[in-house]
Amino acid sequence: MIFTDCSSSTTARLLPLSRQHGVVTLRRLLVCPLNVGPPSRSFPRIRTLTFHSSTSPSPVLAASMDTEASAKVIDGKSVAKQIRDEITAEVSRMKDAIGVIPGLAVILVGDRKDSATYVRNKKKACESVGINSFEVQLPEDSMEQEVLKFISDFNDDPSVHGILVQLPLPSHFNEQNILNAVSIQKDVDGFHPLNIGRLAMRGREPLFVPCTPKGCIELLHRYGISIKGKRAVVIGRSNIVGMPAALLLQREDATISIIHSRTKNPEEFTRQADIIISAVGQPNMVRGSWIKPGAVVIDVGINPVEDPESRRGYRLVGDVCYEEASKIASAITPVPGGVGPMTIAMLLSNTLVSAKRMHNFQ
Amino acid sequence: MIFTDCSSSTTARLLPLSRQHGVVTLRRLLVCPLNVGPPSRSFPRIRTLTFHSSTSPSPVLAASMDTEASAKVIDGKSVAKQIRDEITAEVSRMKDAIGVIPGLAVILVGDRKDSATYVRNKKKACESVGINSFEVQLPEDSMEQEVLKFISDFNDDPSVHGILVQLPLPSHFNEQNILNAVSIQKDVDGFHPLNIGRLAMRGREPLFVPCTPKGCIELLHRYGISIKGKRAVVIGRSNIVGMPAALLLQREDATISIIHSRTKNPEEFTRQADIIISAVGQPNMVRGSWIKPGAVVIDVGINPVEDPESRRGYRLVGDVCYEEASKIASAITPVPGGVGPMTIAMLLSNTLVSAKRMHNFQ
Repeated sequence: MIFTDCSSSTTARLLPLSRQHGVVTLRRLLVCPLNVGPPSRSFPRIRTLTFHSSTSPSPVLAASMDTEASAKVIDGKSVAKQIRDEITAEVSRMKDAIGVIPGLAVILVGDRKDSATYVRNKKKACESVGINSFEVQLPEDSMEQEVLKFISDFNDDPSVHGILVQLPLPSHFNEQNILNAVSIQKDVDGFHPLNIGRLAMRGREPLFVPCTPKGCIELLHRYGISIKGKRAVVIGRSNIVGMPAALLLQREDATISIIHSRTKNPEEFTRQADIIISAVGQPNMVRGSWIKPGAVVIDVGINPVEDPESRRGYRLVGDVCYEEASKIASAITPVPGGVGPMTIAMLLSNTLVSAKRMHNFQ
Repeated sequence: MIFTDCSSSTTARLLPLSRQHGVVTLRRLLVCPLNVGPPSRSFPRIRTLTFHSSTSPSPVLAASMDTEASAKVIDGKSVAKQIRDEITAEVSRMKDAIGVIPGLAVILVGDRKDSATYVRNKKKACESVGINSFEVQLPEDSMEQEVLKFISDFNDDPSVHGILVQLPLPSHFNEQNILNAVSIQKDVDGFHPLNIGRLAMRGREPLFVPCTPKGCIELLHRYGISIKGKRAVVIGRSNIVGMPAALLLQREDATISIIHSRTKNPEEFTRQADIIISAVGQPNMVRGSWIKPGAVVIDVGINPVEDPESRRGYRLVGDVCYEEASKIASAITPVPGGVGPMTIAMLLSNTLVSAKRMHNFQ
């Protein structure tokens, strides 16, 4: 049995997004466990939550989906595993050939539990592929200057090939100052404006591509889904997913449209799309009727919705109503187990790319 | 009588663009003087040409357009004049208040006549508003190092607030190296990837916006055309016009689609657009049937087409078939006299902005 709350998404107009920090920022949305119509006015009760994006899918849920769906399931978990295996092999080859081990430094300021979980997961992921990880944990009341000093040290440290400042930073920090201090050569998150500029420009190459959109495109590539000449609609224009995803699709000669909270009748755009990438953080917003038969759907949203029948009290759903969409699309990413696991895989990939570039290792 | 060759644009698929350098890169297209049907296979004969973009419209042509068109004519020449008057006043106010005169340095390498004309026009435009201009002319066989030395000197010179390297450079130059050497603080062309990155990112501000797309948006603003929530289609994805124009429209909450040489059935996109910006360099490509009634059309193309009946042997047409479009659109820029004159006005504006910023002058 699949719980669905697709019917709770009754508006065709996107709601303004909450600011996204880190890998994925999520909303807790109280929903009814079954299709019981749209929520009342005072509903949903929203608070932002961050969840680790590579949470494993419930086997029961995955099995149910498979029997009902006609679309090919784009298995991000399996692709991410494959990529991690490839990275493991490359890290080992590099170590054997030139004695260099890629290194990722992560700076965590404050005591947010979700951020601590992210950092722990990144550390574990590094270990699993043989990448060295360096971690700095600073108290909530640290000064900007202290963080800048660590960044500066990591910038100069030849054993560090990637630097990542876990967001969000405590409110007394100027996030832009901190992020700008990370050397462009070690900006494995790919969020530096210089990287984004190069991503936008024809004939220029970014040093790093932001991890989540890179993961989306990698899934399309690995599933042999052609992009050139296709109509692609990106839902959401965030700096970390929507905008760079659109730029990446355009670099591969898709015709892109970017829809967002100010777009009227977004479904008119999505219905014409061969490829949809949704990164908006609205549970089940994209209904089956929004999708052209045969389209490919990449769902970046990882939205926790309360579910009293779940052991954890909630479950994760995407921006797309999977149950409906999987009957119409030709291929679709599930949530969880779609784009989520790709983000950390791409972070590891960017760290490896950086180490290879710095040491001119092919 | 208006010469039209709209019928020579028979393909609904955009042709690949030639690389664009400098303000506008144009194609010479041999066309029949009147509607005589599509050209033969070996036709058009194309060679790239650069033309000064602020060429005055023929008064006869402008008058004829007015009588036949129902669309409001967006008079770029007049708006550009108004902006230059505003700049003149601001330059004078700044000089009187703090004794600083904005300065623009232009570096010209080689002996291309069109480039020399551009540089001369920029110099004249500076003089007309009271901005100091500094010009360096170097021979075709100059070394990269020499040019870099001049750029470095201008970067350090406090009387220079904007630096512009006239493109194209001779073929032995690495254009990227040269452009990257210009201080981001003085990059009045706005082509630096850091500027483009900031333009693409929400919550970031570019130091300079590229002149031609800035001119397009300025025309929309000055004619009171609202952008928020509108569907905008940009034709062409060049670094200097199409891509930044799309990013600017998105910053103002339009829903953007970017169509290009690989887009199938581009007219399906344009027919849904409230605002069309065309920057593709294909004479009369956008037909009346491509336009939604009441749409606003900004035509960046300045394409010289041979015209034996013209005194000069050619005339300038846009990417849009003006004759057809002006009957369907609610507002449209003519060519010449539309976007063209705005480019240099925006260059002057960027130079003034730079000087004000450097001297913290409000």
